[in-house]
Amino acid sequence: MLMNSEKSVLLIIDVQTKLAPAIHEGERIVTNCIWLAGVAGRVGVPTVITEHFPDKIGYTVPPLKAAAEGAHYVSKQCFSAQAGDVLAATMVAERRQVIVCGTEAHVCVQQTALDLRWTGKEVFVVADASGSRDPADRDLAFARMRSHGIEIVSREMVAFEWLKQGGTDLFRAINRDFIR
Amino acid sequence: MLMNSEKSVLLIIDVQTKLAPAIHEGERIVTNCIWLAGVAGRVGVPTVITEHFPDKIGYTVPPLKAAAEGAHYVSKQCFSAQAGDVLAATMVAERRQVIVCGTEAHVCVQQTALDLRWTGKEVFVVADASGSRDPADRDLAFARMRSHGIEIVSREMVAFEWLKQGGTDLFRAINRDFIR
Amino acid sequence: MLMNSEKSVLLIIDVQTKLAPAIHEGERIVTNCIWLAGVAGRVGVPTVITEHFPDKIGYTVPPLKAAAEGAHYVSKQCFSAQAGDVLAATMVAERRQVIVCGTEAHVCVQQTALDLRWTGKEVFVVADASGSRDPADRDLAFARMRSHGIEIVSREMVAFEWLKQGGTDLFRAINRDFIR
Amino acid sequence: MLMNSEKSVLLIIDVQTKLAPAIHEGERIVTNCIWLAGVAGRVGVPTVITEHFPDKIGYTVPPLKAAAEGAHYVSKQCFSAQAGDVLAATMVAERRQVIVCGTEAHVCVQQTALDLRWTGKEVFVVADASGSRDPADRDLAFARMRSHGIEIVSREMVAFEWLKQGGTDLFRAINRDFIR
Repeated sequence: MLMNSEKSVLLIIDVQTKLAPAIHEGERIVTNCIWLAGVAGRVGVPTVITEHFPDKIGYTVPPLKAAAEGAHYVSKQCFSAQAGDVLAATMVAERRQVIVCGTEAHVCVQQTALDLRWTGKEVFVVADASGSRDPADRDLAFARMRSHGIEIVSREMVAFEWLKQGGTDLFRAINRDFIR
Repeated sequence: MLMNSEKSVLLIIDVQTKLAPAIHEGERIVTNCIWLAGVAGRVGVPTVITEHFPDKIGYTVPPLKAAAEGAHYVSKQCFSAQAGDVLAATMVAERRQVIVCGTEAHVCVQQTALDLRWTGKEVFVVADASGSRDPADRDLAFARMRSHGIEIVSREMVAFEWLKQGGTDLFRAINRDFIR
Repeated sequence: MLMNSEKSVLLIIDVQTKLAPAIHEGERIVTNCIWLAGVAGRVGVPTVITEHFPDKIGYTVPPLKAAAEGAHYVSKQCFSAQAGDVLAATMVAERRQVIVCGTEAHVCVQQTALDLRWTGKEVFVVADASGSRDPADRDLAFARMRSHGIEIVSREMVAFEWLKQGGTDLFRAINRDFIR
Repeated sequence: MLMNSEKSVLLIIDVQTKLAPAIHEGERIVTNCIWLAGVAGRVGVPTVITEHFPDKIGYTVPPLKAAAEGAHYVSKQCFSAQAGDVLAATMVAERRQVIVCGTEAHVCVQQTALDLRWTGKEVFVVADASGSRDPADRDLAFARMRSHGIEIVSREMVAFEWLKQGGTDLFRAINRDFIR
């Protein structure tokens, strides 16, 4: 029910150079994906990043690549990253909880989240780190995903649930570098 | 869960000449119904169009008729198109997924969608292609339909789920003519 | 699933002279309760009206009394009209679908609706005919009731579902006197 | 389904001196927590108050301490008050219905509410007495909790359901001192 760092994998969908500028509040979305990748790294949660036809739509935006050290990159051609066996060799296959963010919320994020949910995963979509060109599409996607038992969360919910408690060195470091 | 072009039928409800001008944001709703009919035609999804007492309320608006080549037209007297056997001889009876749009969202669209859901169909109502005279009625209808397991989607969700993937000639054509 | 006039009873909660003026958009709420009582009368749906401590809070507002010919009045002391056996001798006990409206949405309307739902009734609360002093209370009540399977509807949904079809004398009369 | 004073316990989460000023609409949230503590005292519902690292974040704000006579205070280090056995010796363990409020809605309130729900409690979170620094986090938390069967209520719903009926001395006193 709550997110647990040992059961989690972070899945960042299609935050690519030619798509990000078209997204509503795109800068904020990218910033929050970077934030999540940074927290995941500190907490020890593995990160998987998808790229949709990167030769055409561009590769992952450089500051996210820099923040997501050790991430596993996969390339895809279907909108759903769960189509085919693109994710089969990644930590998404190993973990029960998949924390999903990226773009577009109503296309690749939603199709992936619904397909993952369909396989029985606990799926959490990070609202403030997911966007579409038109925010009306994004809002309909959040409501639709919710009706399938997908949890729509915020980046702070992710961080505080992964951390579980205050008073530790890890909490102090993340509180200082990310939350304040 | 996701819409699939081979399982889908598009059902356009009562977009008629004397009703459309009374609908809140009616021009946008009609434009998006035309858009859906166009995409359905390209993707090979059959289209069914209902008309409620067309001799009184007018026939389907001409640009939609033009866009929906090969559509099957049915006339109805009950608000729900599922009442009686109006749809029995159409592709709605043959397909498992019914993509519904038109007017009014809280009357004929909703009654049809709820009745179809009741028969076990997977029902998807396209929010940006469905309207009412009063938007408060439309919003209550969307929330009510959602509580019965009807999916409230956007026209782009329909197109991208029917297409499944990028990189094909079909995707490029639809992307060029409809999405951009 | 849809409202059916032969299975329905209209239950109007506490639209009383000393309470109505305190309700947010109270005039509109009262007008819409009168509208529903009028449509119910034409369609043949019985109406039950509750009054909470009428000697203190005042009796039902006169224009509603005038519109609700033949209504069954009951007096109550608990906020939920379903507490005790207040409704036991009314048509609420006889009908499977209870269409509820009145004030306050988050107190007597909600407690009654939840209790009725608990007994297995199909409960429909009419959003545009139900109010609270503070609209935030009303909105929380609608969302809470929805989560218990109570349908939040609009007055037009009630009328069109009771009518089922156009083209009849009854439809023309109601369309002329209530909908247009 | 409805809240019942004999089955209820009020659980106020982390309304502490160094956190409250950072909360969006913090003054209103604190005022409403005080209001709930006052009503609980009159109605005979026990109150439990948690404090998160009070030596660092400060103790419960003084006016709430004054209003919550006889409350049971517990100190915690995990964000969820249900983690460990912090609540095991309190009335939360004894009562079936837990009415939760406080801060932050999307961290300690939500984690506690979800964990309590997970144990089978009926959980009611008081929307107008719960807050976060960013209201977007609060709204996502309310929607997420709702999807787990947690009821999102208002403080007036709590009072009127605990009271059940008008006309009593207790109702008159609470109506005079709290509701009007």
